Amino acid sequence: MIFTSDNANAASPEVMTAIVNANSGYESSYGADAAMARVTEMIRDVFAAPDAAVYLVATGTAANALALAAHVQPYHAIFAHDAAHIEMDECGAPEFFTNGAKIIRVAGDHSKIDPAALNTALSSTGNSVHGVQKGMLSLTNVTEGGTVYSAAETTALSALARAHKLPVHLDGARFANAALATGAHPADLTRRAGVDVVSFGGTKNGCLGVEAVVMFDPARAWEFELRRKRAGHLFSKHRFLSAQMEGYLAGGAWLTRARHANDMAALLAAGLTARGATLLHPVQANMIFAQWPAGTSQRLRGAGAAFYDMPAAEGFEGARLVASWSTTEADVDGFLGVV
Amino acid sequence: MIFTSDNANAASPEVMTAIVNANSGYESSYGADAAMARVTEMIRDVFAAPDAAVYLVATGTAANALALAAHVQPYHAIFAHDAAHIEMDECGAPEFFTNGAKIIRVAGDHSKIDPAALNTALSSTGNSVHGVQKGMLSLTNVTEGGTVYSAAETTALSALARAHKLPVHLDGARFANAALATGAHPADLTRRAGVDVVSFGGTKNGCLGVEAVVMFDPARAWEFELRRKRAGHLFSKHRFLSAQMEGYLAGGAWLTRARHANDMAALLAAGLTARGATLLHPVQANMIFAQWPAGTSQRLRGAGAAFYDMPAAEGFEGARLVASWSTTEADVDGFLGVV
Amino acid sequence: MIFTSDNANAASPEVMTAIVNANSGYESSYGADAAMARVTEMIRDVFAAPDAAVYLVATGTAANALALAAHVQPYHAIFAHDAAHIEMDECGAPEFFTNGAKIIRVAGDHSKIDPAALNTALSSTGNSVHGVQKGMLSLTNVTEGGTVYSAAETTALSALARAHKLPVHLDGARFANAALATGAHPADLTRRAGVDVVSFGGTKNGCLGVEAVVMFDPARAWEFELRRKRAGHLFSKHRFLSAQMEGYLAGGAWLTRARHANDMAALLAAGLTARGATLLHPVQANMIFAQWPAGTSQRLRGAGAAFYDMPAAEGFEGARLVASWSTTEADVDGFLGVV
Amino acid sequence: MIFTSDNANAASPEVMTAIVNANSGYESSYGADAAMARVTEMIRDVFAAPDAAVYLVATGTAANALALAAHVQPYHAIFAHDAAHIEMDECGAPEFFTNGAKIIRVAGDHSKIDPAALNTALSSTGNSVHGVQKGMLSLTNVTEGGTVYSAAETTALSALARAHKLPVHLDGARFANAALATGAHPADLTRRAGVDVVSFGGTKNGCLGVEAVVMFDPARAWEFELRRKRAGHLFSKHRFLSAQMEGYLAGGAWLTRARHANDMAALLAAGLTARGATLLHPVQANMIFAQWPAGTSQRLRGAGAAFYDMPAAEGFEGARLVASWSTTEADVDGFLGVV
Repeated sequence: MIFTSDNANAASPEVMTAIVNANSGYESSYGADAAMARVTEMIRDVFAAPDAAVYLVATGTAANALALAAHVQPYHAIFAHDAAHIEMDECGAPEFFTNGAKIIRVAGDHSKIDPAALNTALSSTGNSVHGVQKGMLSLTNVTEGGTVYSAAETTALSALARAHKLPVHLDGARFANAALATGAHPADLTRRAGVDVVSFGGTKNGCLGVEAVVMFDPARAWEFELRRKRAGHLFSKHRFLSAQMEGYLAGGAWLTRARHANDMAALLAAGLTARGATLLHPVQANMIFAQWPAGTSQRLRGAGAAFYDMPAAEGFEGARLVASWSTTEADVDGFLGVV
Repeated sequence: MIFTSDNANAASPEVMTAIVNANSGYESSYGADAAMARVTEMIRDVFAAPDAAVYLVATGTAANALALAAHVQPYHAIFAHDAAHIEMDECGAPEFFTNGAKIIRVAGDHSKIDPAALNTALSSTGNSVHGVQKGMLSLTNVTEGGTVYSAAETTALSALARAHKLPVHLDGARFANAALATGAHPADLTRRAGVDVVSFGGTKNGCLGVEAVVMFDPARAWEFELRRKRAGHLFSKHRFLSAQMEGYLAGGAWLTRARHANDMAALLAAGLTARGATLLHPVQANMIFAQWPAGTSQRLRGAGAAFYDMPAAEGFEGARLVASWSTTEADVDGFLGVV
Repeated sequence: MIFTSDNANAASPEVMTAIVNANSGYESSYGADAAMARVTEMIRDVFAAPDAAVYLVATGTAANALALAAHVQPYHAIFAHDAAHIEMDECGAPEFFTNGAKIIRVAGDHSKIDPAALNTALSSTGNSVHGVQKGMLSLTNVTEGGTVYSAAETTALSALARAHKLPVHLDGARFANAALATGAHPADLTRRAGVDVVSFGGTKNGCLGVEAVVMFDPARAWEFELRRKRAGHLFSKHRFLSAQMEGYLAGGAWLTRARHANDMAALLAAGLTARGATLLHPVQANMIFAQWPAGTSQRLRGAGAAFYDMPAAEGFEGARLVASWSTTEADVDGFLGVV
Repeated sequence: MIFTSDNANAASPEVMTAIVNANSGYESSYGADAAMARVTEMIRDVFAAPDAAVYLVATGTAANALALAAHVQPYHAIFAHDAAHIEMDECGAPEFFTNGAKIIRVAGDHSKIDPAALNTALSSTGNSVHGVQKGMLSLTNVTEGGTVYSAAETTALSALARAHKLPVHLDGARFANAALATGAHPADLTRRAGVDVVSFGGTKNGCLGVEAVVMFDPARAWEFELRRKRAGHLFSKHRFLSAQMEGYLAGGAWLTRARHANDMAALLAAGLTARGATLLHPVQANMIFAQWPAGTSQRLRGAGAAFYDMPAAEGFEGARLVASWSTTEADVDGFLGVV
């Protein structure tokens, strides 16, 4: 009954097997391994993007910050939601990697950027030498609130950015869950929706620690490589990043694992509402933000459940519950039994 | 006959076993895993430093750059050898992580800092507001030339830095090999020799990708944690870093593996000199810099050998050969047979 | 009838005379000039701070950004009002000088930080390694809205910061106007109110281009000097900065000039309200934010008036009007005549 | 008999007059003043560069660091002489402004870059992702050793950089002295010699504090403006920078003043050699590096002379002597009399 985060779980068997299998003999270092060539093609296939530049790093923060740094200047603004991981949960990594670009927060319900608010932010930024200039839009799908942007919503937000000639980044730490939740083809959620660069997550959905940065336009590929090296994110024994990603993608394991996580979240959400809890955001992927009567949380923890507290209305307790590939129906049933 | 680098080899069995064993159930993220507590104690034991702060990252560049950044200001100079990894092979990571500190190069034969040259550099730096100020000394052991600093040599260099109140960093990407080569206790090569912070390598000597940063004075521990997070080097599924390091240290595997590497290098060096090759640096650990008659390199590569070319005298070819835990006597014999 | 900004005016006669008088013979460079020693004592007297470290730079952005950079780390947050100059009008200088610290915006009416909002911001920042840490509070007096903080208000806000052990910066680009508006002793508005470092403005109030940074605790003085040099803000012919500041301070000219500016603003504000205009913020110093019926602005400009447009209610036009030492009663009367 | 530096002197009368004359009425801020438009045209005329972008800042360090930052990335190397001001005398400003680019030192006699040494440095830099990449060449004319590069020498060095597609910066803090010393047209020493951006000095040669940055290709003009603002180097009362530069250029005052300085240096150098002193570098502009018997320096200082000590041979004392627009023949004669 561990619902704290999808990074508390183990690696999925297919990923661990791939790591073990990769551990034989000598291999070229620093990304020149044979598996990386295969991974590049697999990810290009996922996004139907035959020219994409693909790189692997080990953390989501590195993927996001490097993706941003390859596209903005220090005097630029990055537009992101109030709740965005890059704003709230990376200890200033975007500012560090970009050498001081500014994140401009944009509001919106359920952790989704409101198009009107984005439009206002864009219009009021960068109109003289005295302020930072418009630099980039960063979206997150699945959002921090567990909601998703459809392909159409992504396209609409990207269009606002593109009207100002800004590139668009997508933080897809839970991209697999978003793709399944929307039913959209990965290309329709990204490249065809105006996204230029994706942080394509692996860690939360079954890997040990690997994320891909996918740049649909390879023009900045070499710059990305230099920034990755300079940031200490180029692995010497890169084969072990490649192996994880290959195991993750092979046979569609990444989608199978994410589908399970989304299903478990749906089951849990349905059970919670049936038991009187309120959902604070629509449950669309593998995260639940719920509110229940005070006292419930302690009871749940007493029974061995784990989750994060969230703000709630007077007399209630809030919680964030995250399902993962390793969540079992028994976990869900046990949890609901205590609620 | 792969002698290109000790990062071309696989992970040692004990490390891979530890990874596999760690892959079970849920575990706290971001360094709060149970194995990390054990690793901290094990590393404190290695250095006889019960108060040391210990952190894990995945690359040597990250370990070095974070260790430096936690100790110097942007207006500081870091003194390092001409050939130091931080100067030559990290694409400016120290400058990035320190926000622009300057590396001042110090000469010395066989990749070892010459004490007189260091003294001159220290004396001529930071004497007014117009120049950068003296910030830190960074040593490397095993050096980039395959040589080692004894405990006494380390102490002497540290003393020069300490006379100016500078902290001292040791890049120990191959620390195991250095400890064995010198016969010194790890504490005598570091803490007791005036070193404040060590990059303690695991990757080259049998891990997949893990290095420890060991700070003997924990005063900057929290700053280090923030800088690590901000640089994208805090792993969510940290248990897999901990597991590698635990498997590496347990039962002294790290020393056993390094001893083998040093032994293979010695065997190879002896065979080379017996066959007329010249050693460009003393062979003291697991790296050989040799020179042989022109034509030899091509012949070796034709026979399947791999190594890096190095500058050499007219009519000769230079080579760098690195032995690792996975080098076999058969590799050595085969190589010598072709020479 | 030029009310665009107090930086559109010339230098006051006493400042220009001081510059001219300083232009004779040789003088030590880089702040070692004799006049700087006098200026240091004069500013220490202004703030009744005999130990203060005092430095001169040529722009307000430099003063602010250097003051902040000397007190915060890259992983820190600076708390400032939504409208603060450091947030809106310096093209990211604070982020540049601090190497990527984050400004956290705090709301409040009339450009003054609301204590409750500050408290919330402080409480919700820096509670784990995943977010930036609390670093500093920056206030502005006179604010961007032309309002002032009393000594008591300053003390209350500083106390919130100090409860979290944060230092406090005051952007005093218009400090003279604030001191007069509040009637408070400069020390009571700063040092005795919990402020650690002040950007003490000269440029807007009669200088050519000089601002002092006053650090009540000299502990970071040397760091400040290094950062100033490194930022290209240490003047070789420093005597010309010293001369300006000496001319500005001598005989209380700075207060005389600011009193006139405040008086002219009060006169103009009274005349505007008498003619039906609405003041958008209380007029407390030398800036007026007013709103008048649509069409008025064009008429004023047709008559030679200059000012900045501001947002206003439907059917109205907003304007910012700034009085300076060189504003005349004739300017005010002429303007009001057109209104 | 003050020969410490050309920044110890006062402003020349024509510059001070221009400042005084500019101090009347209101004027647009931040570079939109009428005088700046005139200055831009005057400087374009100097360099026969009708499209050049021209900006003013107040210090040479700012001019250099901003010029570099507008052309290099953080992962780039800047090639400069061992003795270059950007390397030795700016407390790391280039590293700060470029966000961590690395200066690679190139040797050469008399503070002039040796073409062969530059070629070696260029060839050995940036050949893999592990090292910083070739970014820019920075020359200094007059050099730190008081020598000058002819147009042909500048062209030859620039050609080496251009062969690697690198832009070229010229630190011309003493450009007027260099132009006179070489007899070359300013365009032949810069634009036509392959230089892309010049720091065109005013401060040392008669201004209070103003330097122009001249970019022959205006493509990066807007970026430069943003970086200047972000660095706190955009003056609100910009008219006072413009006035200085206008006064400096008008009627060729800048050349007249520099010719006098060069002449005084030549006179002094001739007198010194006649009295047995040795010149350590050829005296080509307004700086002398000389060596005389031990004891001489104390005697000179006792007589009221001022200069900097320099390293010298055993039994000798070294000195740097700088002549300026305000040096008189009486100063020279007096000095020689004591020698």
